[in-house]
Amino acid sequence: MPRPIVFLTDFGLDDAFVGVCHGVVASIAPSTRVLDLTHTVPPQDVRRGALLLAEAAPYMPRDAVYLAVVDPGVGTQRRAVAVQAVSGALFVGPDNGLMSLAWRALGGAERAVMIEAGAAGGPGGSTTFHGRDLFSPAAARLSIGLPLEELGSEVDPASLAEILLPEPEVAAGALRAEVLQVDRFGNAQSNVRAEHLEAAGLAGAATILVESGGRSRLLPRVTAFGEVGRGEAALLLDSAGRLAVVVNHGSGAERLGLRGGDPLTFRAAS
Amino acid sequence: MPRPIVFLTDFGLDDAFVGVCHGVVASIAPSTRVLDLTHTVPPQDVRRGALLLAEAAPYMPRDAVYLAVVDPGVGTQRRAVAVQAVSGALFVGPDNGLMSLAWRALGGAERAVMIEAGAAGGPGGSTTFHGRDLFSPAAARLSIGLPLEELGSEVDPASLAEILLPEPEVAAGALRAEVLQVDRFGNAQSNVRAEHLEAAGLAGAATILVESGGRSRLLPRVTAFGEVGRGEAALLLDSAGRLAVVVNHGSGAERLGLRGGDPLTFRAAS
Amino acid sequence: MPRPIVFLTDFGLDDAFVGVCHGVVASIAPSTRVLDLTHTVPPQDVRRGALLLAEAAPYMPRDAVYLAVVDPGVGTQRRAVAVQAVSGALFVGPDNGLMSLAWRALGGAERAVMIEAGAAGGPGGSTTFHGRDLFSPAAARLSIGLPLEELGSEVDPASLAEILLPEPEVAAGALRAEVLQVDRFGNAQSNVRAEHLEAAGLAGAATILVESGGRSRLLPRVTAFGEVGRGEAALLLDSAGRLAVVVNHGSGAERLGLRGGDPLTFRAAS
Repeated sequence: MPRPIVFLTDFGLDDAFVGVCHGVVASIAPSTRVLDLTHTVPPQDVRRGALLLAEAAPYMPRDAVYLAVVDPGVGTQRRAVAVQAVSGALFVGPDNGLMSLAWRALGGAERAVMIEAGAAGGPGGSTTFHGRDLFSPAAARLSIGLPLEELGSEVDPASLAEILLPEPEVAAGALRAEVLQVDRFGNAQSNVRAEHLEAAGLAGAATILVESGGRSRLLPRVTAFGEVGRGEAALLLDSAGRLAVVVNHGSGAERLGLRGGDPLTFRAAS
Repeated sequence: MPRPIVFLTDFGLDDAFVGVCHGVVASIAPSTRVLDLTHTVPPQDVRRGALLLAEAAPYMPRDAVYLAVVDPGVGTQRRAVAVQAVSGALFVGPDNGLMSLAWRALGGAERAVMIEAGAAGGPGGSTTFHGRDLFSPAAARLSIGLPLEELGSEVDPASLAEILLPEPEVAAGALRAEVLQVDRFGNAQSNVRAEHLEAAGLAGAATILVESGGRSRLLPRVTAFGEVGRGEAALLLDSAGRLAVVVNHGSGAERLGLRGGDPLTFRAAS
Repeated sequence: MPRPIVFLTDFGLDDAFVGVCHGVVASIAPSTRVLDLTHTVPPQDVRRGALLLAEAAPYMPRDAVYLAVVDPGVGTQRRAVAVQAVSGALFVGPDNGLMSLAWRALGGAERAVMIEAGAAGGPGGSTTFHGRDLFSPAAARLSIGLPLEELGSEVDPASLAEILLPEPEVAAGALRAEVLQVDRFGNAQSNVRAEHLEAAGLAGAATILVESGGRSRLLPRVTAFGEVGRGEAALLLDSAGRLAVVVNHGSGAERLGLRGGDPLTFRAAS
């Protein structure tokens, strides 16, 4: 059975870019299953793509080949790479950090090669659509057993581009944090995890003061949306283990005027 | 061959929630086919999800396992259930009515169990993402042959939450109806079916008076868009067997200012 | 192994139309793989659908069955057809030109039949949803080996509707062209290909004057986005081999105010 391909891009769903890559994979590896993670990463937003890939990785089949393309540098000097994680998972995409959070979640990068166009064996040779011409054929071949080293020459995994997420600043009773992303339901996910709450002495607090945009609000800490009334705001550790501002049947991001990248502070209620 | 999973949610396509569930299914049941019905049910709109599921059900493989998640009550007391329809189809999701119109279309609910977290065997234990941690693993296991009763203890099918669609009020020559939903093409689907037209004596009418928003218009009854001129409005029984206000090459909903839930009256032309 | 189906429609992703067709295919041909090209062709925009299908075709599996539905004439006299291209690929859809650019890219139409409702063997008989009731069952049966001629009686391939793309007007040092489409990244693709640049003597030009909307700008000709600075506009032959107005990390269409169908002129820099 071929390894499944897990596919994430910023190609959108209105053009045929995603479908074309599916066709390239199916032409090379007709039995390979392709799992679409999402294709509406905001155009060229490498960090957002990296976050989504990393949150999904623990739930994907262990032998997955990740095919990830958010690639503002296509056609320039940026390398095309294939990477093997410690878990055994494989990654194919641009060397711009996009895949780095995910392979870190899978034990780190163990081996890497720089993909050579000839070795991928793709159908075209464009300088603008490596998703179709380089990455999809490489991932398809890996899914049916091509050894990593046949895609190109080995490179030092330590030389791979990485994305660093901002860590919250921890003080006694206070966390200076950042909004990482807002999801479809309006949940504003911060970079705070349980360990940070612990370190700041906020782990057991029933309510926490949230400061953002010049205002501060006292929000209850809950474990499910339904613990507060409809339309009420709260804080919860979300399904990725990060503290999020939420509103039951509403949008936490809208309520507090939060967007990805915004600073916010969590403070002990006095 | 495993049973196919038919998958509907309100998770949207911009986050990785849907892809994560695909990964969970593929990890447990690598050969199971997943058919995506739609994932852009408006957030927490259980009735809209129920309508879409019910219209699709008659066209799905008979042995399908339906995995449906529109779940504003996640983490609260609402039960997680697996249900077997008279047709043999299986359903996995929250006990909030979401799946009730579909199983009714498949002969009714015959057996049901309350899913116990341990029995589903999912990878995580969040209180906010049962799609990933409870429903997807349960559906995956059912698709490869797990007997229903191994997911939890039996509950009375009569105790399951149900959604009731408003039925039109029928009088001689008049139907007080409601707009159920508006599709991408702007077709405004009402809750009127052929049997209601029959009961009101409107079945054979070549034109029908449509009253909504304080206005009334005389619209021709047609069987295909092309029977009226481009830009002209008409009434037809749509592909789900419901009377819809349509415009050839345009939007019936926009023309009459109709949205889901709006009242409208169909009346014999005098 | 069944032939894969390549699926394109204007059904959108918010209703269950696409999912219903997947269900119909899976009911008839459970092992057939379906590759979704895109389903958000603007409603009833046959030309846009035709362009997307044609650009994708060279990258799809050679034995693909194309299932394409952008069908403003559903229920009228327009024929439902199944067509075999010279390459061996099959096409199923309305006879309105939608598939014509694609089969031309695959060597032309070799044989064609008019699909008869009874022969397709679909589940329903609506006059408004032939995607579900006629085209999906026909494509599913073809994918598992039904001979073309069993779908209906043969028709002359020369009688099939075709879409003609506007060709640029070529003069010495000038090309009167048209914007074909704008993609998600804002790249405005014209109908100019390398051969036209050659004919106009512009093939080797390092810069080209672009006239549109009463303004003219001198843009550099590049082969990758990264060859100009962030936010700068340029011209490149895109991955479909067409000259496009692009902006590095931005939208060429927005910069020049271009939309599909707009005229633009490329002229030698004086």
